[in-house]
Amino acid sequence: MAISFPTENATAALEEGGRTSISLRAKTMQDSPIRKLAAIADARKKKGIKVYHLNIGQPDLPTSPIVFETIRQLQLSTLAYAPSNGLPQAVSAWKSYFEQCGIQLDEKEIIVTAGGSEAIVFALCAICDAHDEVIVFEPFYTNYNGFASIADVRLRAVALSIENGFHLPPAAEIERHITTRTKGILICNPGNPTGTIYSREELQRLVGIAKRHNLYLLSDEVYREFAYDTPAISVMSFPEIHDRAILLDSSSKRFNVCGARIGVLASHNREVVQSALKFGMARLSVASIEQLALVPLLTSPKTYTEPIVEEFRLRRETVYEGLKTIPGVTYYRPEGAFYIVIGLPVQDAEHFSKWLIEDFAYENETVLVAPAQGFYATPGKGANEVRLAFMLKSEDLRKALNVLRVGLDVYKKQFS
Amino acid sequence: MAISFPTENATAALEEGGRTSISLRAKTMQDSPIRKLAAIADARKKKGIKVYHLNIGQPDLPTSPIVFETIRQLQLSTLAYAPSNGLPQAVSAWKSYFEQCGIQLDEKEIIVTAGGSEAIVFALCAICDAHDEVIVFEPFYTNYNGFASIADVRLRAVALSIENGFHLPPAAEIERHITTRTKGILICNPGNPTGTIYSREELQRLVGIAKRHNLYLLSDEVYREFAYDTPAISVMSFPEIHDRAILLDSSSKRFNVCGARIGVLASHNREVVQSALKFGMARLSVASIEQLALVPLLTSPKTYTEPIVEEFRLRRETVYEGLKTIPGVTYYRPEGAFYIVIGLPVQDAEHFSKWLIEDFAYENETVLVAPAQGFYATPGKGANEVRLAFMLKSEDLRKALNVLRVGLDVYKKQFS
Repeated sequence: MAISFPTENATAALEEGGRTSISLRAKTMQDSPIRKLAAIADARKKKGIKVYHLNIGQPDLPTSPIVFETIRQLQLSTLAYAPSNGLPQAVSAWKSYFEQCGIQLDEKEIIVTAGGSEAIVFALCAICDAHDEVIVFEPFYTNYNGFASIADVRLRAVALSIENGFHLPPAAEIERHITTRTKGILICNPGNPTGTIYSREELQRLVGIAKRHNLYLLSDEVYREFAYDTPAISVMSFPEIHDRAILLDSSSKRFNVCGARIGVLASHNREVVQSALKFGMARLSVASIEQLALVPLLTSPKTYTEPIVEEFRLRRETVYEGLKTIPGVTYYRPEGAFYIVIGLPVQDAEHFSKWLIEDFAYENETVLVAPAQGFYATPGKGANEVRLAFMLKSEDLRKALNVLRVGLDVYKKQFS
Repeated sequence: MAISFPTENATAALEEGGRTSISLRAKTMQDSPIRKLAAIADARKKKGIKVYHLNIGQPDLPTSPIVFETIRQLQLSTLAYAPSNGLPQAVSAWKSYFEQCGIQLDEKEIIVTAGGSEAIVFALCAICDAHDEVIVFEPFYTNYNGFASIADVRLRAVALSIENGFHLPPAAEIERHITTRTKGILICNPGNPTGTIYSREELQRLVGIAKRHNLYLLSDEVYREFAYDTPAISVMSFPEIHDRAILLDSSSKRFNVCGARIGVLASHNREVVQSALKFGMARLSVASIEQLALVPLLTSPKTYTEPIVEEFRLRRETVYEGLKTIPGVTYYRPEGAFYIVIGLPVQDAEHFSKWLIEDFAYENETVLVAPAQGFYATPGKGANEVRLAFMLKSEDLRKALNVLRVGLDVYKKQFS
């Protein structure tokens, strides 16, 4: 596995039939559990089976036409490097967007990044050296593994439980995972893959821990607007940790511009921002056209987000009501984002999910779901869980859940 | 400096007047030497002084209108995630581009990246674990430091000499720097900051070393077309290292689309490509619009590159001839790219450069250059050198070099 010496390298590689070697971090990095079954789904579609995609987080609604209109209107003669922290118009638009969310930021506290992904890599690099640790709550957004692997940071997972809708455990349980190398706590709020929104009290618990243990609190808030019962509270709402709160954000989901790859890192801690910017300077800049294309949406976000959030609120209800009709399923009412992790009455949800997409059909239709094991760091956890994404209209969601219900019934008879 | 324990953290941070800490890798990362003096230049311009920018690599020529035309013509309704390896049209266009450069690649051997920057980070992550080493030749493109810092890889610098135009030393001198942790050799060919193009014999030397020591040979070929005497030879032209050659590329310079942030990682070693793609999957995708915007240029590159290379060939001559008129300067005839590193008859080129932009003017004009020390890893090296970029029309280059000549003369009288 871990190979450090050229001679061992050569030997190990020869055994593998080649001569060169791959890094351990690449070898141990899991393939995306979300995309894993996609190839099987494609094959199935070719056989004429309709597949309901409950596996991916790509919104199905059209992007606001204003994005494309803005692009068409751009008057550029040269596609030059943008400043490393972002084009002034883009930074200013993000500031305005945050202001409308009740978050006051100076332009110097914002760095435009290549998606939320790059914001997380820069934040990790700014606060962690190799082998430092960051606490996450499992199940967590699986790509955090990839970002941690690039920065060579260790994610230490605190287990959440489906029983309480994946809300946070007591402070002592979290603190048990803090070591001498822990540099921060990374949350996703509203949560992917759980749809959980942390209450003020829960966030206050994390704020207390961050203060007591001298940790950063990193908050991935890309689903901010997708809050169906009460608003999601930003990590920037706690003045007592203004020096240790790092906001990670992205335009992808709320504006349905996933392909634009425009995110943000923001903090009142200027040293963090300056340090992150050093890594930003190395990669020079972020795609200029997309930075500019989002300006109208960022300066007037609600015109676009309010209607789509209503649509997703409807879907949340549809999924919640639909799950009630499936015997043996463990679930809860997701509070935000557009995901839910559910427990299935099966031993191995990955086996079931594969069977569902590969072998099963009900009235010529089947469903693609994301096995939840990939969202856990602890081996064996989430073995009977799957993540559902609400990326279909309510009518289709109802049909998809019915296929799932019938599928579970057939599977149980076949495999028990 | 290096702080691993929260208690020490707190202490050290308190001493710094704060409470949180920044990673050692962020602290030790140098600011961009290219952008360092830019603020002073801005202040000078406000005082009415004309500044000739010889410091940056942003081409001054307009971007091909076809880029903007393509963008205006795009018919998209949703800005969705692109596949992690790139949009099929973009991958296919890159394959076609490489074919026209005499490089045969399968589409499965290409990953579209967010600029050449991301390609380098992915390549380092695919072949190196933390603290593994990669050999570079100094002076080298300073941002390699940033990429290495993100991936926590150590760059081990082999010194080149201005005396032979920064060509490679004998194999034994390079091999002396190989340790048990060395995983690869990273070159930039044609070279930034030197303008050097390695001969076939030099590349063959590196190929031999890579084979003998089981190393990858990573080649940054973003300046491929900017070769004024003989063509630059790609690392992909050596079948004997098809399993260990990694091509890193970017559209930025040759098409003057620096702000598009579209690069490529390519290799015949599918395991390397698959490993790099794992990191690509974590960041999901690269900006879709820019991927598509470059398709016409990639499929018909020479219509754009041939005229601009002619222009830069002219500039190369202008600079070379101009340098002949400046007493005491060490220089050579750069073979490619649009840079040259020159030795100045001063002790401290950084002091001189700062003085030049801050205090000096000749006929109300001055020059901004990039002190070369930032391109070296070895402390003290390059102390009397600066990098010049040929980003001005020949007439302005001539004027700029004349200002430099007068400046050196005044400086010598003032400071010796």
